[in-house]
Amino acid sequence: MSKQPGRQKGPVTSRDVARLLGVSQSMISRAFDPRASVSPANRTRIVEAARALGYEPNVIARSLATRRSSIVAIVMGSMENPFYTGVLDQLAQALDEAGLRSLLFRVPPGQDVDDQLPALRRYNVDGLIVASASISSRIAAEWRRDDRRVVLINRTVPDASVASISCDNCGGGRQLADLLLDSGHKRLVYVAGPRNTSTNRDREDGFMEGLMERNAGLVGRIDAGEYSFNAGAAAAHRAAALKPDGIFFANDILALGGLDALRHELRLQVPKHVSVVGFDDIEMASWPSYRLTTIRQPVSEMVSSAVAAVAASATAQANSISLPGLLVERGSVMRRHGM
Amino acid sequence: MSKQPGRQKGPVTSRDVARLLGVSQSMISRAFDPRASVSPANRTRIVEAARALGYEPNVIARSLATRRSSIVAIVMGSMENPFYTGVLDQLAQALDEAGLRSLLFRVPPGQDVDDQLPALRRYNVDGLIVASASISSRIAAEWRRDDRRVVLINRTVPDASVASISCDNCGGGRQLADLLLDSGHKRLVYVAGPRNTSTNRDREDGFMEGLMERNAGLVGRIDAGEYSFNAGAAAAHRAAALKPDGIFFANDILALGGLDALRHELRLQVPKHVSVVGFDDIEMASWPSYRLTTIRQPVSEMVSSAVAAVAASATAQANSISLPGLLVERGSVMRRHGM
Repeated sequence: MSKQPGRQKGPVTSRDVARLLGVSQSMISRAFDPRASVSPANRTRIVEAARALGYEPNVIARSLATRRSSIVAIVMGSMENPFYTGVLDQLAQALDEAGLRSLLFRVPPGQDVDDQLPALRRYNVDGLIVASASISSRIAAEWRRDDRRVVLINRTVPDASVASISCDNCGGGRQLADLLLDSGHKRLVYVAGPRNTSTNRDREDGFMEGLMERNAGLVGRIDAGEYSFNAGAAAAHRAAALKPDGIFFANDILALGGLDALRHELRLQVPKHVSVVGFDDIEMASWPSYRLTTIRQPVSEMVSSAVAAVAASATAQANSISLPGLLVERGSVMRRHGM
Repeated sequence: MSKQPGRQKGPVTSRDVARLLGVSQSMISRAFDPRASVSPANRTRIVEAARALGYEPNVIARSLATRRSSIVAIVMGSMENPFYTGVLDQLAQALDEAGLRSLLFRVPPGQDVDDQLPALRRYNVDGLIVASASISSRIAAEWRRDDRRVVLINRTVPDASVASISCDNCGGGRQLADLLLDSGHKRLVYVAGPRNTSTNRDREDGFMEGLMERNAGLVGRIDAGEYSFNAGAAAAHRAAALKPDGIFFANDILALGGLDALRHELRLQVPKHVSVVGFDDIEMASWPSYRLTTIRQPVSEMVSSAVAAVAASATAQANSISLPGLLVERGSVMRRHGM
């Protein structure tokens, strides 16, 4: 049987590995520090030799010396929105490929991210990626002073010390306004998500600007209150009372709940009687039962930008990056007569 | 302004907290160790005093002394199956409530969990919860020797040292066999998931036993190969060629893909022409477009059992727990004539 890590009699030290390869001990520890600049070839050579000897660097012990744990905390709000479970999946993979670990913090509904952060500091994490939740500028600034990066996904705070990666939510809202006006819609309703989210604010702003530029407006605005399937269904009932010919739901999970309510509860045909558009392009939006026209967020680009930003040195400029969304036209919008 | 943690001039030590409360320093550190037996009242009193003083115990430093990091690694295989993103969401919450942190490890498709574990040991995690992936008995035994718990969700390995929490997949398969036979189905097809998963094996075994006991059988078995929406759609095309009156898809995400393919691509009515059942009861199974009849896995019970098992002392007996599923009848099964 081949030698197994953890089967060692005495613990193998970095000195043993260094001796085997004829390099310095610091070279060995740097090879196990994803932030240290070591040529890929050398890193591979060292990691393989270490594995062969059964050497396991104690990252936690090292982190006390270097104040680097190679652990990035991912703070997630609600996972009710499938968009963010997709983001989480890709984030965990991308961090893994960058040699970083994901410490997952779930913010219970109603609780503030800021409350969680002291607990987080105890784990000496290198940085913070916050998705589907927000964080106060004050706390973000504290982290920054502490030489730790904070990156927000799809949220913005008015603070230069926080990197933020978003889809161009405003631009996406405009695209949907143009799409609905170009296809002859006259009675539009906007179904809003949570008031405190920049996604909802920016999508609505972009949509309204797009309408106003062309002297169009809404026949009504419905507040869904939260991003969930059931909230979308409830909002559809209130929207239908306004006899709309087109509804923009602030995100896809709302739109899918709305679509099902319009078809199966209100007996309306989509898009024949009313067109429906959403935002995000979650997987279910493409399912044959829905074929939802929506704006696709560039998730993989957003994730790689977030990982790059959190891995960057804290002294580097924190940028706010906004990436364009892509209009994906499926079957939920119809060209209206009498244009 | 109130005093903020991290705003301290000099670092506050456990001695300061101990002095304030007139208790021993070890009492303070034990209050911050979820495994130490401290009365809830005392723990609350200490944690609040610590917060007031801005005391932040360094969990990582303590973990070196106690070999307890209060970090539990969650190892996830594919997140393509929404069932496991639901499990992850509840796991992260339950661990949080138990004062434990979730270190998320994503096993890249095709890669073996065992390959990841050496990396995991570096983080000195207290235990391991493996979901939608499996682990070899050898590695599990190593961890056990190492005084760390390993808990599998919905997987079983022939090893007494591994705790395993499953839904009674075999019993659920039987319930579906009885349901389809009782409602007069004569031409049944089973659509199988990945060959190497105990979920697929046990669900199929239970279903086949249920059929055989009543001298019934299948008109065909289709191998979907993976648990995904698209695999379910592809399997539905092959299943339809067998002219079935009932199809059991090994899980819900397969069944939803199958339902959409049967209705929108093959122009068959479900349940009029063919009944469809799945397994898991993921959120989408209840959406009006699907109304899938399925077996509900008791996720919250499974999650709390898993957290209890991983928090238990490693010397405690590792049990394999199997919890019954619940048949949820919706609109995807029809009573056949000529019974």
